This record gives sequence, C-alpha cells and structure tokens, in this order.
Amino acid sequence: MQKQERVVIDAVSPQINGGDFFIKRIVNEIINVDANVLVDGHDVIAASVLFKHENARKWSEVRMHHTGNDEWAASFIVEKQGFYDYKVQGWVDHALNWQHGIERKIDDGQHVISELLEGALYLEPLLKKVKKNEKEFVQECLACFKDESQYDKAVELAVSEPLHHLFYTNPEKELANESRTLQVYVDRKKARFSTWYEFFPRSASEKEGQHGTFKDCERLLGRVADMGFDTLYFPPVHPIGEVNRKGKNNTTEAFEGDAGSAWGIGSKYGGHKDIHPELGTLADFKRLVKKAKELGIEVAMDYALQAAPDHPWVISNPEWFKWRPDGTVQYAENPPKKYQDILPIYWENDNYKALWQECLDILLHWVDCGINVFRVDNPHTKPYYFWNWVMLEVKKKHPDVIFLAEAFTKPKVMQRLAKEGYSQSYTYFTWRDNKHELTEYMIELTQSDQREYMQPNFWPNTPDINPYHLQGANESKYLQRYALAATLSSSIGIYGPVFEQMIHEAIPGKEEYYMSEKFEVKHYDWFIENKITLLISKINKIRHENAALQQTNNIRFCHVENDNLMAFYKWDQNKTNELLIIISLDQYYAQQGTVQLPMHELGIHEGQQIQVEDLVTGSSYNWHSEWNFVELHPTLPFHIFKINK
Amino acid sequence: MQKQERVVIDAVSPQINGGDFFIKRIVNEIINVDANVLVDGHDVIAASVLFKHENARKWSEVRMHHTGNDEWAASFIVEKQGFYDYKVQGWVDHALNWQHGIERKIDDGQHVISELLEGALYLEPLLKKVKKNEKEFVQECLACFKDESQYDKAVELAVSEPLHHLFYTNPEKELANESRTLQVYVDRKKARFSTWYEFFPRSASEKEGQHGTFKDCERLLGRVADMGFDTLYFPPVHPIGEVNRKGKNNTTEAFEGDAGSAWGIGSKYGGHKDIHPELGTLADFKRLVKKAKELGIEVAMDYALQAAPDHPWVISNPEWFKWRPDGTVQYAENPPKKYQDILPIYWENDNYKALWQECLDILLHWVDCGINVFRVDNPHTKPYYFWNWVMLEVKKKHPDVIFLAEAFTKPKVMQRLAKEGYSQSYTYFTWRDNKHELTEYMIELTQSDQREYMQPNFWPNTPDINPYHLQGANESKYLQRYALAATLSSSIGIYGPVFEQMIHEAIPGKEEYYMSEKFEVKHYDWFIENKITLLISKINKIRHENAALQQTNNIRFCHVENDNLMAFYKWDQNKTNELLIIISLDQYYAQQGTVQLPMHELGIHEGQQIQVEDLVTGSSYNWHSEWNFVELHPTLPFHIFKINK
Repeated sequence: MQKQERVVIDAVSPQINGGDFFIKRIVNEIINVDANVLVDGHDVIAASVLFKHENARKWSEVRMHHTGNDEWAASFIVEKQGFYDYKVQGWVDHALNWQHGIERKIDDGQHVISELLEGALYLEPLLKKVKKNEKEFVQECLACFKDESQYDKAVELAVSEPLHHLFYTNPEKELANESRTLQVYVDRKKARFSTWYEFFPRSASEKEGQHGTFKDCERLLGRVADMGFDTLYFPPVHPIGEVNRKGKNNTTEAFEGDAGSAWGIGSKYGGHKDIHPELGTLADFKRLVKKAKELGIEVAMDYALQAAPDHPWVISNPEWFKWRPDGTVQYAENPPKKYQDILPIYWENDNYKALWQECLDILLHWVDCGINVFRVDNPHTKPYYFWNWVMLEVKKKHPDVIFLAEAFTKPKVMQRLAKEGYSQSYTYFTWRDNKHELTEYMIELTQSDQREYMQPNFWPNTPDINPYHLQGANESKYLQRYALAATLSSSIGIYGPVFEQMIHEAIPGKEEYYMSEKFEVKHYDWFIENKITLLISKINKIRHENAALQQTNNIRFCHVENDNLMAFYKWDQNKTNELLIIISLDQYYAQQGTVQLPMHELGIHEGQQIQVEDLVTGSSYNWHSEWNFVELHPTLPFHIFKINK
Repeated sequence: MQKQERVVIDAVSPQINGGDFFIKRIVNEIINVDANVLVDGHDVIAASVLFKHENARKWSEVRMHHTGNDEWAASFIVEKQGFYDYKVQGWVDHALNWQHGIERKIDDGQHVISELLEGALYLEPLLKKVKKNEKEFVQECLACFKDESQYDKAVELAVSEPLHHLFYTNPEKELANESRTLQVYVDRKKARFSTWYEFFPRSASEKEGQHGTFKDCERLLGRVADMGFDTLYFPPVHPIGEVNRKGKNNTTEAFEGDAGSAWGIGSKYGGHKDIHPELGTLADFKRLVKKAKELGIEVAMDYALQAAPDHPWVISNPEWFKWRPDGTVQYAENPPKKYQDILPIYWENDNYKALWQECLDILLHWVDCGINVFRVDNPHTKPYYFWNWVMLEVKKKHPDVIFLAEAFTKPKVMQRLAKEGYSQSYTYFTWRDNKHELTEYMIELTQSDQREYMQPNFWPNTPDINPYHLQGANESKYLQRYALAATLSSSIGIYGPVFEQMIHEAIPGKEEYYMSEKFEVKHYDWFIENKITLLISKINKIRHENAALQQTNNIRFCHVENDNLMAFYKWDQNKTNELLIIISLDQYYAQQGTVQLPMHELGIHEGQQIQVEDLVTGSSYNWHSEWNFVELHPTLPFHIFKINK
C-alpha cells in the first residue's frame, strides 16, 4: 500500500538530474529553495526546508512561504565547507486550519461552541511543548474554550494573533511528508572568485637562452601579486619525456637542447610525483609555493594524466597502457595523426583500481607539498566516474582543494564534467566576441540550471588558444577582452606575459601561437609596464573591492541602442554593492549610446537621482533618467560604474 | 569506488520527475526516446533503447542514432496494454572504432599491418556469435588480416561495408552502461480517443413528472449511438441520502418528492455498491450496460467518495468520518459554508487501510457488473497516494479500466493527479474562449511534458458549469464550441440534452444552471433533431474516420491574419491522415482571412497543388500557394479539411 501522507512535494529546486548530482555554493552563499507543495482538498498546509551539514547531527529548519500557484519558497545560508543535505517537508497544519475556519464562521455570525472545543484539542499537545510564558497563554485559552460562560473572550482568543503565532511556531506535523534529500557542496570562496595568471616557469630566467628555474620564478612573484592575481598556474613541472620528445613549433623531431612539451610527462627522472630537474628540486618548488602564499598567491598545478613513452609507469605498470598485437605500445592517436610523444592511459584495464589509487596518490602528494589548486588537463579524455571519485576522495580530506576542468570541448561533455564535481570550468568565452554571442552565452551560464553546478572561468587566451580576434588586435581590443572577462565572470585568467605584451604571432590560419612556448624555452622582459598591465592591475583591484564582481550569476543585461556597446548590471547577494558596467566592443572608433537602467532591480523610479562613479577614473555622474547617454573611446573602452543611491 | 564504465547517459526523455511517474501511451503508439550519450575522448560509441513489457522475459532492443550534439534517438512501438520498462544503454564500440581508425590511416597512405592484427582481435569473438553465412566472411577476414601476403585484400576487407555491418550488428558491449529504468503505461485506445455523452438517468422518462429508470434509458441508447458517442456517463446511480437531502435549485430544505443530489450517496437502501431504487434494480442496470455495449457504447460510472449522513458506512465504520468533540459528525465545510447533506471521508483515520480496501472493492464490484470507465468526482479532495494505489490495483486485474479525473482546480493539482495515473483529465477548455487563450492552452497541453502524462478531455459544458459564453449564445456559438472541442482534443464530452437543445438559463452572475438537474428530475423531448444534433453526429463520424483526430498531441497552429479565425494542422502517427481545421470564433458575422499552410510539415513547396476536401460539406478546393483565402459564416462556422496531395 502507498503512504497515508496527504501532502505531496514536487519540483524541488535547485536540483540537478533529480538529485543525482550535487549543486555548488561557496561559504556564506544563499540557497533559494522552491517547491510545489500540494494537498488534497482545501486544508491549510505548511512547509519547511530542512538542511544539515554532513558533520551536523540535527537538521536545521527554515519555514517556507507560499508564493502563489502552489509554489513555496525559503532560503538558507551555507556557512561551512563540505556537503549539506537539504530537503522539503510539508504537512497539513490542522490547528491553523481550525483557526482559519473558525474565523470565517465567527465573521459569518455563527455560534462556535463546538468549534471551540475542537480548538482545545489542538491546544492540549502544546502544553508539553511550549516555553513557560507561552504555557500560561495556552492554559488561558484552554480554560476559556471549555467554559461557555467565557464565550466572548474565547471567541476573541480563538482568532487572536498570539494564538496564530503559537500554532504557527509549534506545528504538530502529523503525517508530514518529505521530498528526496538533495545535496549541495560548499567550497571556499576561491572556487567562485579567483584571478589566475599562467606562465611557464622554464621561461622565467633573466638571461636569454637559459632554462628558467623555480628560483627565477620567485623574483616574478611580486609582479604577479602587484597586478592583483591570486592564483599562479604553471604548466606541468614534472620530468619531461626524452623518447619521441617534440621539437620546436610542434615538430616531431627534437634536436639537442630542445625542451619538449611540458605535457609529455615522465622520464628516467621520474613521473607525476617528481620535479623536472632543470626547474630545480622539490625543495625549491615547496619554497616557491610558500613564498607565493606569503604574497597571497596560490600556486595551481597542472594535473595531466598521460605519460611519455619513458614514464616509469610503462615499466612498473605496463597494464595501464594498451599494447598492440605486434608488441608495441599504443601511442596517442587521432587517426590519421599520431602523437608518439604521448601514451594515453588505458582506462579499461583490469587493474584500474590500482591506477585510480595511484592517480589519487599523485594529488595527495602535491597537496602535502602545499598545492590546493589543480588545473586538470583534458579531463574529457578520462572517464567521468573517475573524476567524480578522485575529486571527492581528495576533498574528503582536503576540502580546500579546487579543480579547474580544462575541457575545451562539446557543451554536454563540459556540463557533465562540471556535474561530476569540478569546482571551475574553462568556457567558450575565449571565442565569444560580439555582443549577441556574449550575451547569449552569459544567459546560458547564469539563467539555466548550469548556474547551479558550472562555475565558469573566463580566459581571453591560453597557450593552446591564440584566438583570431586577438591576432593583429590593438591595445584597445586587449583591454576590452580583459574587462569583459573580469566583469562578466568572477573567475578569470590570462596566459602571460604573452597577453599583456600583446604577443600574437600565429601559425597562419590557426588559433595557435607561432613558435609556441609549449615546445620551447622563451625569454621575456618580464617587467615591462604598459597600459594593459596598468589597467589589469586596476581592474583586479576593483574586483577585490566589489563583491558584485566576486560572483557570476547575478547579472542582468541592460538595453543599449548600439551593438558595439554592452551594458550590464551586477549586484552582490545582499545588494549592498551594485555596479553598472559598460564596455565598447569597437577597438578603432568611439561609440555612443543610451543605456537603460534596470529601474525595478535598482528600486528607483523615474526622476530619482543616482550617482554613478567610474571606479577606474574616479569620475562621477548624476543620472536622473531611465535612459542615459554614454560614450566610450578605444583609449579607455569601458566604464565600471559603482551605483550610489 | 565508482564504476569503470566510460559511457555516461544523461537527460533521457520522455520521463516524468526523473522516472518517479510513468508516462502514458495507448496500444500501437510510438515512443520517441532521446538521451545524451557521452564518452570521454573520441571513441566511437553506440547506444540502444531496451524495452520490455511487464510480462515479457527478455528485453527488446532498438539501436539509437546520433542526431547531433551528443544527442541520440530511437523509437519503439508499444503493442500491448500494461506497463513497459524502458532504458537507454550505451557502450564504446571498439570494433567500429578500430575500423574508423584504420580507414583514416589507409586513406593517409599508412602501412597498417599492426592494425590488421588488432582487427583480428575484434573478429575472433564473432566466430561464436554470428550465423553460418556470416561466419565464412569472418574467417576470410581473419585469414587475410593475419597473412601479410594478402595485404591488399586485407585492406579492402578492413574498410568494407560488410565488415562494418557485421561489427555494427554484433556489438561486444564491453563495459556497457545503462540509464535508470523508466516506465510507460499502455492503455487501450479509448484512453486517448473517446466521445462522451452525459445525461441524468432519472430524467429519461417519457412522461413528464415521472422519475426515469434504467429501462427508460434503454430507449435513448440508439439516439446516443446514432449521434456517434461511444461513452455514456451517468451521474451517481446509488441510493440518495434522505437525511439533510438538498432541495430544488440547491436549497438546503427538501420537500416531499424532491429527488436530491445524486452525489449525496447512501441511505437505508445502501451505499456505493448499491442502486438507487427509483432507477431500478442491479439487474436493470446490468442489462442497460449490456445493451449499450451492443451498440458500441460503454457506460461510465461516477465514482464519488463521500457519504450522505445516512450512508451505511456511518454506522459500520464511524472511524472513517470525523467526529467533533460534541459527538456530532463533521459535515463538509468550506467555512463559513456548510454542506450538511455530505460527510467527507476522514482520510487520516487509523483504519485507513480498510477504507482504501473498501474503496477498491467498490470499483471491483462495478467492474464485475460490466463497467470499465469511471468518471471520478472531485479527485483533488482525496489523497494523491490513494489514487495511485487504487487505480493501479484495479488495472493490475482489469487493464481495460479507464479513469477520468473531474478535477476542475489549480493547475499543479490537476497535473499531479494525472501523474498519479489518471487515464484522462477534465481541462480548462470549458473556460478558454478566445484565440489567444485557446492556442496558449493547447501549446501547454501538447508541447510541455504534460503531453506525456495528461490526456485531456474537453467539455463545452457539464452539470456544474454553464459557462458565461454559452449563456445567451446562439446556435453558431454552440457549433463552434463543439467543433473546437472535437478537433482540438481526441477525448471530448457534452452534458446533454442541455447542450444540443441550447438550454442555458443560469443563476444570475454565476456559471451554474438555474434549477439545475443536479437537484431535481427533468423532462426532455429527447428526440428533437436540430442543426446542432446533425452537426454533432457529422463531426463525431469524421472523428471516427480520421486518425488525426484520435490523438491530441500532433497539432500545429497555422498563421491566419484574423483573431476571429483559428487554424491548425493535425496529423496521425504515420502521417497518412492530415487535416487542416479552420474555425470561426464569431457567432454573428462572417470572417475572412488568409491561412498559412505548414509547407515544411506537409512536405510540399510553393506552387505545388494540394486538394483540401471539406469533410462536412464534401466541397473540394485546389490550393497552389502557401497562403490561402478562407471565409466562414456563422451558419457553418468551421472547415474540417482533409488534405490530399
């Protein structure tokens, strides 16, 4: 037989795949829970959201309120890292239902002696529940309800607000029903708000032609910190394979002295737990990580699960690779292309449990060395279930660890990886250039259920992607791209110093850097200051000072009558920080337009004055209208306005 | 540890609440299954839909095809009544992946000796699987692949279509993964396609002032059948309570001879399993049911779970009702209103299992008497879980039984009742009058996931609803409302002869019939023939002859430049029956407009001739254009065009 419960609960949100995956939040963020709560008939019902941190013993409760059309809502704040369970509970509130009925009967002039006796039945159980001061009130009601001589007073008490409050706050919850239990994973703030800088440590040397070391990197830390970056991501720092090593510009033949690809991991010097000797020692690495931390920078490590042909695993665990009938090992392939410097892992091998464990051990090893951020290379070429397992295993012991998925691939694959638990995901921002496609993409990320599980990280460039629109672009375009990334998304990153020095020579017809740093040691004048570095620093400072830019989902695009101008309103959770951002997409000409303020969201009316304060220039403007004129020049192609009311 | 499977399956549709509820179909309908099927990396994958009738031992399989963006699709037909399970299975097809790779390498001019040896590994398992004629081919391939001297032939075989076919049809399915198992309930055709006529048997007498009987009803069966109705629904035929019986026009005082409300069930003559003595005997009822069946009509019974104060249950099972502290029984209330002729069931009583069982027994009793269709009165005032249980219990033994939910209530409540298993649901059609609201409502019913679980039944009127737009309406309006119901929805019904005789006197300001038949015996001239009866008969005949009208979901609205004209295209599952329906919503004036044909759906191009044949008048028109002129007069305010190409 089915349950006797009369209340049913449907369409609880947020939830992903009916609760198969957890949603994501950071510490102190809000969760707005909605659900349909229904009962047969017309009884008064009530509902709560129950929530509980994984380490808590008792459920916390927050009462839901009816928002219309049988939809109920309540919110709670997640204060601690780790998993929370949450669920919706609904019940018929017979006591309130009684009060609702007697009120109408009294209004109708009916005699309610019998109803008062019923009311007493709802009051009696409260005697054991309520505090002392309330107890007296309950007793008073009980006495009156049962005493016909006090009828007038009884009627008054029956419909009184204190009685309503008493019933509301002490529900009996008979035959309460509950939804499925859902989960949210709460990360530290960095999962949502992070500013990444990527460089190749081997290019950090002061001297041209010399292989950079971790010690060389140390002298760059101050610059990275001064520019306002909080995460320093290095391509793999492990021993680089010597067998079939790649030559410069991605040629298959390496010459004496060619550095090879940092992603061709493993050699006689070791594998994923070791350090490439030319970069220094493990001690050097740990010192660098520590010094960075002192400057507020976390070093993010690359986690690239593949092996060079001379990786130690090939000898120790040949079963983790695929062997061909002719006795040779299977190289990476995308037929007809072959990548002979790389062996993919054979995930379908029978000894996969040992493999998974070893992959976990690598992460735990580096966490022990001080690493809490991993940028995962090509996660879409490793099994989905593996990611779910390995990330949760790490986070069980080390909840601070953050994983960024480098999956530049098909949309559903990227979404699924995020569902499996990635803290952050690279996105298509790198290729979204005009107003329509940027707007559409932002709406997809922030208005669909992706907002609950996919935390975007916007990169204008990466070592793999030299986007067409930056090839030959001028300074203004670089500023626009950085400003777009930094105001649209709370997590962003650049590959430098290529970006800020506008190095953009490409392999013709491709979005790849010519003579890519991926295959050779480069030499830079690291300390060049220019308008781009200046404005990056300024924007990063603004991001750190404005909570509205420290999340991605609270965005609303504003109408502006010009396809070369984008305008959007952003706000923080408490609406104590409200920004209006206007960015020109034209790198050559000035653009003018009138921007429509989101009056309703701002809570202002036509004619009311607001002040918009440009956080870059310090200029302020007083606006009185819904529509306001703006003009942007390529020299400074954006406004980040703080709205003061 | 998580699963080693590499393929993941997401977003399987159709599904309701992640599989918590079953979807619905009728026998021989199609189910189009879609799913996201993903793998890490770039391997060739394959997927199937597996499905199985509840009585079958083995799963049937239909292969899915990739429709783009990692979405896969397949369809299957449900041939039998009852539950089917269905699920999506996905796997990496290593053999096809091998063939895909070797093809590209050969095209690239590579030597593939080693690849051929790999291919042999995929061929060997087939030796045990394939039929004799295919076995020879496998052996031939194996011999060539392993013999370098036959390299050219081996290469030819490796990329051959027969080998592709062999691999495709004999997948190894290593590490195949499966979605959650979902369910569909398959009803007989009547659940989707039914034409109802409702009348009060007590008004069936030939003689004015005399209480009608089942025998009187028999003489009306021919008329009901001739008009093309296949379901004859009677308000409750059980003994009517005598305590607190309702008087005429819903007054609380009944006088001698007042018939009372048929929904006030139970008296000294019995309860829900008994027959109201004034209507006849159980034998009379059974004979009526049998005679109706002989004319192709099923009698639908009202299932109204409530009791008059003198219902036998009040004595036999007082615990099924609520008793007040003053010792009186709780009447139905909607404070301040009281309905003293009705006792609601107290569903929260401790003896609810016996109550549920008794409610089930009522249904089984009437099924034994020949009833297979139940119209359930106010299901939204009884618990949701009860409905799920009781309907499935009945259908386990009697899969032909159909339940229509009379829930004229809030949208989410109606949807939930449908999810719980109702075969059909009354709808808001009764109040949807203008083009915009009719179109919007149809799109909600047929384009949202409601299409999968809510089978609408459109009623222009009921004994409870005398809609404002029919009060004072002319004949044309009645024709429009019937034509709209009958072409928009495959299940429809009218309350007659009130509808076809345009009886529409209302209680002023209310959508209720004045001197409603609900509270008294009426007398009609049953055999009046008029334009409405003629056209109802004609439309019903067209419905029986055109499969496009025997389902509701295949509808597409056509643009027509006139808000008083509605046009829509309907088609059957195989697109062998295509209709274009145009209905005027103006009861006073002629309306003209140009209708846009759905060229793409019709598979025709501009300039191609089609013939549209008016199934009412027999007239035909040849159309050559996308836009075509139509004019409708109030005298015949609709076209039901059959499209002949």
